[in-house]
This record gives sequence, structure tokens and C-alpha cells, in this order.
Amino acid sequence: MERGRPLIRQISLDKYYRLMNTGPTVLVSARAGGRSNVMAAAWAGIVDFAPTPKVSVVLDKATYTRELIEQSGYFGLQVPVVSQVDMVAALGSRSGRNDPDKVAHCGAALFYPEKFDVPLVRGCAGWMVCKLIPEPHNQQEHDLFIGAVLDAWADDIVFDGHWKFDSAGPQWRTLHHVAGGHFYAIGEEVTARS
Amino acid sequence: MERGRPLIRQISLDKYYRLMNTGPTVLVSARAGGRSNVMAAAWAGIVDFAPTPKVSVVLDKATYTRELIEQSGYFGLQVPVVSQVDMVAALGSRSGRNDPDKVAHCGAALFYPEKFDVPLVRGCAGWMVCKLIPEPHNQQEHDLFIGAVLDAWADDIVFDGHWKFDSAGPQWRTLHHVAGGHFYAIGEEVTARS
Repeated sequence: MERGRPLIRQISLDKYYRLMNTGPTVLVSARAGGRSNVMAAAWAGIVDFAPTPKVSVVLDKATYTRELIEQSGYFGLQVPVVSQVDMVAALGSRSGRNDPDKVAHCGAALFYPEKFDVPLVRGCAGWMVCKLIPEPHNQQEHDLFIGAVLDAWADDIVFDGHWKFDSAGPQWRTLHHVAGGHFYAIGEEVTARS
Repeated sequence: MERGRPLIRQISLDKYYRLMNTGPTVLVSARAGGRSNVMAAAWAGIVDFAPTPKVSVVLDKATYTRELIEQSGYFGLQVPVVSQVDMVAALGSRSGRNDPDKVAHCGAALFYPEKFDVPLVRGCAGWMVCKLIPEPHNQQEHDLFIGAVLDAWADDIVFDGHWKFDSAGPQWRTLHHVAGGHFYAIGEEVTARS
């Protein structure tokens, strides 16, 4: 999608779940009526990988991104990294409702994948385009949105179906939000004996 | 709950979400009809913190723990740590359906909190007791179970409302599952500028 680095590759849908299996904080993006927006979300996860790859994300009723998803029926999920921590914190604290330039003001740059009118944020480790599975009760009662993953990509420097944190360097580690502007980066590999 | 270390303290329900906000792999425990079981789950997360603290967890139809939760209406969620990685991998690969001693065979020891007939696993960083919020459609269609958090505790060595990974040492870092027996430990703190 860009020349030189980063080299962005499509990820097969039987491997996409590894992008989120470790519980990183994600960015949620959407576009409707000519407006694009991005928010940060710590409460996102995998729901299924087969036969339909599915994700869930909790979206507060106050968020503008939620409104765009309800209008368009699509959203992007992407996994940001340590080098983007200030951008992620800003995307999680400002609202796009009253700031049409929120995305730029937070230091994020968007691109659009082929075939989907869903904005994605440059510089992340991986991206997914999802189609909302409408669940009015979940959305209203639990603020819980479920989507089917249609396509996924990752930056080859850090993920090629397996995470490559050791070779990619510390700036490419995923972010795991605690509270406020405080995160932990993902750390060392630990392998069970058997 | 035990003399000397570990010192287990109750966590106020406005702080419990920090136990899972960083996306750790969890252990899910339940008891019904005189049988207790524990399984590992990477697909668990927070759904809300107020007014009702809520969590979600994906439980495959094949799991015996799911059956116990459907019978009792309660479950435990706990956050295991690096020193428990072999136990966590074993709890995630064996089934309790055909092995009444699965828990012991995996090297786990149970305890019971006051007031709740819900088994919890010793040696974890934190624990929650949850009451199932019955959602038959979610359970059947998405294998998704939502629970209200009734009470939460943590081992003071590693969590007192804030994570204390630096002082607790590497064996107390949380586990984040990728696939198979491969995990990452949570890593270094990263704080946004603003």
C-alpha cells in the first residue's frame, strides 16, 4: 500500500485472531456520510474464528464512531504499537463529535484498503475490516458490537501470521491499556513445557 | 485467606476492571452438582464497569466448564501469571468431561471464597466471582457468556488497585496467549505524554 517499508501483507482469516488473541488495546475506525472517525478501545476481543471469524468491541453510546458504525454497518479494527502511544491516548480522550478534524488533531493518518470504504490508521501492526452483525439487544443493553471479519492485513515487520516482536524492536510492541494514559507494552515470550 | 504470603485483599468494584483491562488470558472456574472444573480462556474481557460491573467470556459448547456455569449460574474469573504457565496450558488443553481430577492433574489447587460456592485457583494475581446474566441468544449463537461481577480480590504482591509488576518480579507478570502453548508476558510500562 506504500512504497518501501512498511510492507503490508494480507493475513489469512485463520490467522487474523492472533492479532488480538493477546488482548491489545485497539483502534476502532468507521466512515459514514462523508465523515471518518477513529477511537481507542481496550474492551475488544475475538468471539470466533470458524466458520465465521468474529470480533466484539464495547462502544459507549456517547462515542461518535459508534454512530458511524450504526450508519454504515462496517468498521475497522487495528492494533496500534508503542511508537503510537500519544496518538492512541489522544484518540481515546477526544471526541470526533465536535471536532471534524479529530483524527488529524490526534496525529493519525488514514488510508483506505481496496474494496472497502472503511478508513484504517497508518503505522499499526495489523488491521481488520469488519461487517457489523446487527444485535440490537447487545448494542443497547451492553454497548456490545459484534462484527464478522471480512479481511485482515499486517505489517510484515512485526506480524506474518506469527508475532515478530524480537526482531521488530521495542517501538513495534502492542499496547495494553490500564487506565488514564497508562499502558503496558507486550513483553517476553513464555512457552509452556508440554 | 492463607497465612503469611500471599496476602489477598478485596478489590473495590470500581478497580476490578484493571485486572482484565490489559487483555490477559484468564482461567474460568465453576462448580455444580458436586463437580468443580477450571478451563483457560483467551477470549474474555470487560463489558462495563458502572452501574453494573460486567465481563464477557467465550465458552465453546464442548467445554465442561460451560455446562457447570449453565447449571449453577455462577463462575469465577482469575488472572494467572508466568509461574503458572504450564498449569494454564494444561487447563486449556485437557477436558474435565472425562477426567474428574482434571484440576489436580493440571497442577491447580482450588480454594473457596467466603459467601460463594465458586471454586477459585490458588496462586493467581486476581480473582472475580461473577453471576451469569442469562442471554440465551448470545450463548447459543456466539458462545458468548456475560456475567455481573459480584466481588473481586487480588494478591497484594502484584495488584492493589494498580499493577505492581516491577516490584513483584517476572514470575508475577500476566500471560497473554497467542496460540498452542505460546504466550507473551506483559512487559514494560508505557505512558502517554499528555
